[in-house]
Amino acid sequence: MKNNRIVILGMGTVGTGFVNTYHLNQEIIEGKLGGPLNITRVLVGKAGKRRSVDLPKDLYTEDFEALDLENTDLVVELMGGVEPAFTYLKAALKKKCHVVTANKELMAKKGAELIGLADEMGVLLRYEASVGGGIPLITTINDGMASNKVVKMMGILNGTTNFILTKMTRDRLSYEEALGQAQDLGFAEADPTADVEGFDAAYKLAILSKDAFGVIPDPEEITRQGIREISLEDIEYGLELGYKIKLLALGEKKNAHVELSVQPALISVDHPIASVNQEFNALFIEGNSLGEIMLYGKGAGGMATGSAVMTDVMEVFINGRKYVGSCKEKNMPVNNIGLSPYYVRMEVLDSPGVLGQIAMIFGDYGISLDSVVQRARGLEIAPLVFITHDVVRDKLNRALREIEGKDYVVKIQSIIKVVR
Amino acid sequence: MKNNRIVILGMGTVGTGFVNTYHLNQEIIEGKLGGPLNITRVLVGKAGKRRSVDLPKDLYTEDFEALDLENTDLVVELMGGVEPAFTYLKAALKKKCHVVTANKELMAKKGAELIGLADEMGVLLRYEASVGGGIPLITTINDGMASNKVVKMMGILNGTTNFILTKMTRDRLSYEEALGQAQDLGFAEADPTADVEGFDAAYKLAILSKDAFGVIPDPEEITRQGIREISLEDIEYGLELGYKIKLLALGEKKNAHVELSVQPALISVDHPIASVNQEFNALFIEGNSLGEIMLYGKGAGGMATGSAVMTDVMEVFINGRKYVGSCKEKNMPVNNIGLSPYYVRMEVLDSPGVLGQIAMIFGDYGISLDSVVQRARGLEIAPLVFITHDVVRDKLNRALREIEGKDYVVKIQSIIKVVR
Repeated sequence: MKNNRIVILGMGTVGTGFVNTYHLNQEIIEGKLGGPLNITRVLVGKAGKRRSVDLPKDLYTEDFEALDLENTDLVVELMGGVEPAFTYLKAALKKKCHVVTANKELMAKKGAELIGLADEMGVLLRYEASVGGGIPLITTINDGMASNKVVKMMGILNGTTNFILTKMTRDRLSYEEALGQAQDLGFAEADPTADVEGFDAAYKLAILSKDAFGVIPDPEEITRQGIREISLEDIEYGLELGYKIKLLALGEKKNAHVELSVQPALISVDHPIASVNQEFNALFIEGNSLGEIMLYGKGAGGMATGSAVMTDVMEVFINGRKYVGSCKEKNMPVNNIGLSPYYVRMEVLDSPGVLGQIAMIFGDYGISLDSVVQRARGLEIAPLVFITHDVVRDKLNRALREIEGKDYVVKIQSIIKVVR
Repeated sequence: MKNNRIVILGMGTVGTGFVNTYHLNQEIIEGKLGGPLNITRVLVGKAGKRRSVDLPKDLYTEDFEALDLENTDLVVELMGGVEPAFTYLKAALKKKCHVVTANKELMAKKGAELIGLADEMGVLLRYEASVGGGIPLITTINDGMASNKVVKMMGILNGTTNFILTKMTRDRLSYEEALGQAQDLGFAEADPTADVEGFDAAYKLAILSKDAFGVIPDPEEITRQGIREISLEDIEYGLELGYKIKLLALGEKKNAHVELSVQPALISVDHPIASVNQEFNALFIEGNSLGEIMLYGKGAGGMATGSAVMTDVMEVFINGRKYVGSCKEKNMPVNNIGLSPYYVRMEVLDSPGVLGQIAMIFGDYGISLDSVVQRARGLEIAPLVFITHDVVRDKLNRALREIEGKDYVVKIQSIIKVVR
């Protein structure tokens, strides 16, 4: 007989969304489970705090030791951060509790260890809600594409930065103005570092890399660049050339390594991912048999994320099964040496022959150019924008160092990857 | 011990894609299955025909009776059409074979009966590939959204008509020219009726309605309108007003009925589904807790569809489980009486006061207008385009009958739903 006894660690936005999803759809959830979900305890920082969720007051505790894990079937972890969540989940797994978590940082940094421990103890660990809020990315990669090798992924995995870039593109706001609006609307934290520097997207990409490629990276190994230095000028030149700028998470499996990176990139306005605006997320996934599919939705929000947590809990209690497709882990190096076109914007002296000289230097390094925008403004200094053909980043950097040394070059302002 | 013995009914494009997916990813598929897939027999119309798939010649048979279902674990049906597939699958289920099918017409017309029989015999029936080719729509609705009530769906479920409408919109081709190109490229059949009249999309919507709403419609009950009468003029006026025309499958669950329809519709160019072009498919699904998600991809193609069939086969052999979320069927009427804005294009005599008189008639019926485009061409007859606010179709039809009776109205040319 199943008791469906769960304890919940953390009762913030996602915890509230989880419990409220249960109350909203109690009849269908219990119908599928064959009985009620028994929430036996909720661990919180402040037991007395008012919460917008209807749970008996005596369920709350501030003491992990009070949780009675011996008589718990499943632990739902919605605290966020590595500690103390990591310590708590190891303790729960060792007591043979199943685990469902929405914690991206924990799964990115300690996922392999937790999954290994769950396997050892013969219990399940599910984490759909750790990436993409309520969009079923993990399930799709593991189960919906079980007959495929995933060869490539491209995603907008962070809603905050997508909101900021959308505002900059649509309303020609500066980065600072757009960030301010995002903060006012609750899409960005007071300290926006985790979002705007790409850490959040890199954690999510690390989790996806495990499921899609079977390669578990240290998040530190992921090439990461944030959006702080993206200027309105770059957005406008991009549009003029037929591109939008998005913070893209890219993953590609090569023969002997995987390439993983998070960075602002120019992408053709005709690509469906260029139409993913505001706080929405999307992930393109390419399977070697299936071809490309895309999943799209809000990548955050208490109800959306809470409903994904609930779906995981139901999977454990109804089927008690692992993902079909969990890849065998492979030991492959992570790097990002791949070829790519790049967008380069610089300021140069507005005098005859400058464009030619710079093009010559690119040529000396074997870098050919796809497009050039030169616009005289009748001033001493003029902007110059190049899009290169495929080039290795190191070689581009060497060429640009030489170019920046010339006395007719004022400054190299932007170097942005172009995705086709 | 599992033998994974399968027989395949039909070896056309999807059958070939299924077997070639197996050969392409044999190592990972067998790794997950824990052993090989044993294709014991293949039923075809002509056993001697050359096929672009590497299977031993002696597997082929033209005789269903030769299939030895007693020693078969699973039947993969890729023949298409209701008969003889229906008879064959009933026979297979009665012999306790699991079934995986890609047959949309069969599942739309006889799905309830087959699922009932599978339940009765204690075997599984999966049909992911029957809708949306390789896009995991069925899995997402049933499993990925198990904690949600699906309240609404909107999709582009037919690649042929989307290709035709995209060509008309981008290249200003007529319907006939665009259809010709689709036929040349193999996206449309010589007889395109099933696609362009919306039957194909209606079958798919019927299948989705069962999984999303728990309501099994007779496909005949689905309001259905094709794209044959869409003219370039409508596409151009639509763009001018900020809309694209797409063949949309719409489903909405109301308190006591469901609304299901397939029709050309104007949709805002800002909506992500308006960016779904060429032969691509997409489905928006709204869950009551999750909110909206969208899945996007190629809705056809041998490898993509074959890989979805393979994923279903793997689910049966690995987990032997039903969808988590299969809704309990409800007896709800299907209709389409909902309110909607409409686009109406007519030709009228180009004389003073005509617009006013027509607007008055709309007013008499309580129909208010959102936008009007009137363009004098210096000719006796002028086009007039209206977009109404929400109105019940019957009431609109009554108003338009009265308007068409006036001597200053030459013809009402188009009435197209507007989706916001």
